[in-house]
Amino acid sequence: MTAPAPPPATPAGAIPTVAWRDAPDGGLPGALCLIDQTQLPGAAVELVLTDIEDVRAAIRRLSVRGAPAIGVAAAYGLVVGVQAHRTADAAAFASRLEHVTERLLTSRPTAVNLAWAVARCRAAIEGLAPGDAVARLLAEARAIHAEDEGFCAAMGRHALSFLRDGGTYLTHCNTGRFATAGIGTAFGVFVAGQAAGLDLCVYVGEVRPLLQGARLTTYELRERGIRGRLLPDSAAGQLLASGRIEGVFVGADRIAANGDAANKIGTYSLAVLARHHGVPFHVVAPTSTIDLALPHGGDIPIEQRDPLEVLTFGGVATAPADFPVENPAFDVTPAALISSIITEQGIARAPFGPALARHKGA
Amino acid sequence: MTAPAPPPATPAGAIPTVAWRDAPDGGLPGALCLIDQTQLPGAAVELVLTDIEDVRAAIRRLSVRGAPAIGVAAAYGLVVGVQAHRTADAAAFASRLEHVTERLLTSRPTAVNLAWAVARCRAAIEGLAPGDAVARLLAEARAIHAEDEGFCAAMGRHALSFLRDGGTYLTHCNTGRFATAGIGTAFGVFVAGQAAGLDLCVYVGEVRPLLQGARLTTYELRERGIRGRLLPDSAAGQLLASGRIEGVFVGADRIAANGDAANKIGTYSLAVLARHHGVPFHVVAPTSTIDLALPHGGDIPIEQRDPLEVLTFGGVATAPADFPVENPAFDVTPAALISSIITEQGIARAPFGPALARHKGA
Repeated sequence: MTAPAPPPATPAGAIPTVAWRDAPDGGLPGALCLIDQTQLPGAAVELVLTDIEDVRAAIRRLSVRGAPAIGVAAAYGLVVGVQAHRTADAAAFASRLEHVTERLLTSRPTAVNLAWAVARCRAAIEGLAPGDAVARLLAEARAIHAEDEGFCAAMGRHALSFLRDGGTYLTHCNTGRFATAGIGTAFGVFVAGQAAGLDLCVYVGEVRPLLQGARLTTYELRERGIRGRLLPDSAAGQLLASGRIEGVFVGADRIAANGDAANKIGTYSLAVLARHHGVPFHVVAPTSTIDLALPHGGDIPIEQRDPLEVLTFGGVATAPADFPVENPAFDVTPAALISSIITEQGIARAPFGPALARHKGA
Repeated sequence: MTAPAPPPATPAGAIPTVAWRDAPDGGLPGALCLIDQTQLPGAAVELVLTDIEDVRAAIRRLSVRGAPAIGVAAAYGLVVGVQAHRTADAAAFASRLEHVTERLLTSRPTAVNLAWAVARCRAAIEGLAPGDAVARLLAEARAIHAEDEGFCAAMGRHALSFLRDGGTYLTHCNTGRFATAGIGTAFGVFVAGQAAGLDLCVYVGEVRPLLQGARLTTYELRERGIRGRLLPDSAAGQLLASGRIEGVFVGADRIAANGDAANKIGTYSLAVLARHHGVPFHVVAPTSTIDLALPHGGDIPIEQRDPLEVLTFGGVATAPADFPVENPAFDVTPAALISSIITEQGIARAPFGPALARHKGA
């Protein structure tokens, strides 16, 4: 077979997952800067976004993805969308804010962190005049950004008790620095373990169709020098049957009040397989992922994505044109299959309802 | 996204999966002809093989695949390998036969049909002089070829009782005309159902890394006008949870005496998921797939394939170069997860041991 392309000359390390760049004079208008994750690991390309439609498109095509990172990007996205209106009158500003909010909220439906971040930022500017409101929106976005970094570190600390030196674990999708503003959610647990001196081995599936496991998680494992192995998604069954995996750690895009958790497609299959083999299954997510308004997972909206993601690869057809496709971006794992939910507040165990409400401060 | 390439101008229908082509005068030396399945559905290319190393390479790279088709190809492969020695002395012929046998047996380790076909052909020429032996080998290969077609039809008839009009089923990998000399094993069940007037819908995963589901099974579904849907392998869990799937039908590459069945990687995951959701799980394979010499599946050799199959796609890197990979071509589903094993002899149910021995005529 053809050898794979060499690693990119420009390391992704030079470009942050999400960042705000001030105007040259240090003020507004600024720009939302993202590494274009769709081009990783082949190329490290920075997107500099100053138009709300470009922010929306970047979220939709997964240039930025991962529930916490989407939340941070959406908070900055609000600023991108309204900053040109900071000298407008109150009515024009309010109208623009509504429009920008709608463009962000409808970009991706499943991850609740997006709606949570937008709602939090909007609540912070109640009653403010446009100029003050824009400054406050940016401050709130920066706060969400900084908090997420701290939440990642806290989740990693809480989950350390689930790791052992020499242990081998399975994760899914990408939940590290490309999915958050910090070390990650599920992936951050391994980073914390490594920092605590543990020698770990982390298996990850490819995560078709967009290969976040193959493209991003392997990249982060290598970048951090954590041992790991990549496998086709469907090989998880035989891997768990082999007895090598001691725990499964995944992130979440929305957790219902009862603990049912939506996450990247394939998570539910792993949860069933983990249960069948008696392997603990942990969900790691900040409390911004918890949606107490939804009693259970059946109410979580599941994004159906473009069939071409499955019918093609890199522009090459892999199936007959127009063949009908099932391409849900997420699935829902019922709380009954989850061993623990780890947030920045600590470890929640079944019954999850009361614990999640406590973590959420409700 | 880029639109997929149009369907191939040359329909694969013009080229058989496996065929023997006589010399222009109707005799030997002939050629083993195969459609190159690695190029489907993009291009329909016929391979005309007259060298044992080319036959071995075609089997290894999966230009011909599917346990029954590999068995037929190996039988013809014996003829390819020894036909130039039909006028040699007995010792030279015997030596050549040993060499050719070794080249075929070591091409792929898991599917027992290959070893079964080679052993059957060799048993048929005990004591024959080289010239007669080569003629007899070809006759035996043709017999195996013709039998497999009949076996496919018989399996389809036996399994009809598991289908209903309007039913929706899940299959894995490709088990149709590209995997056999007939309508197929698991796929043949759907063909038989369609012929019996049933309206069926067949879901199939992509089957990473080589995408036999996306490339071949969707092609056969469309070719036959059977409704179907393609999904990422990892989406099988949410599909089964949705309640849409009434039965899972898969093939097998080797079935141990107790009913444990090796099949394409991912089959075991589907079996666990089917059991979790109370959905029947059927294995469809001719008796040539049964290996009574192996008491259980733990003894089945599992082929580990090239890491580049997982690290790249169409020559493009999808993961960091040299990242460690887990790429088993097969997994083993324990008999306890199998509802029935359907062979050309009928339907075997648990306990499978006595039933399989009876089907095998042991």
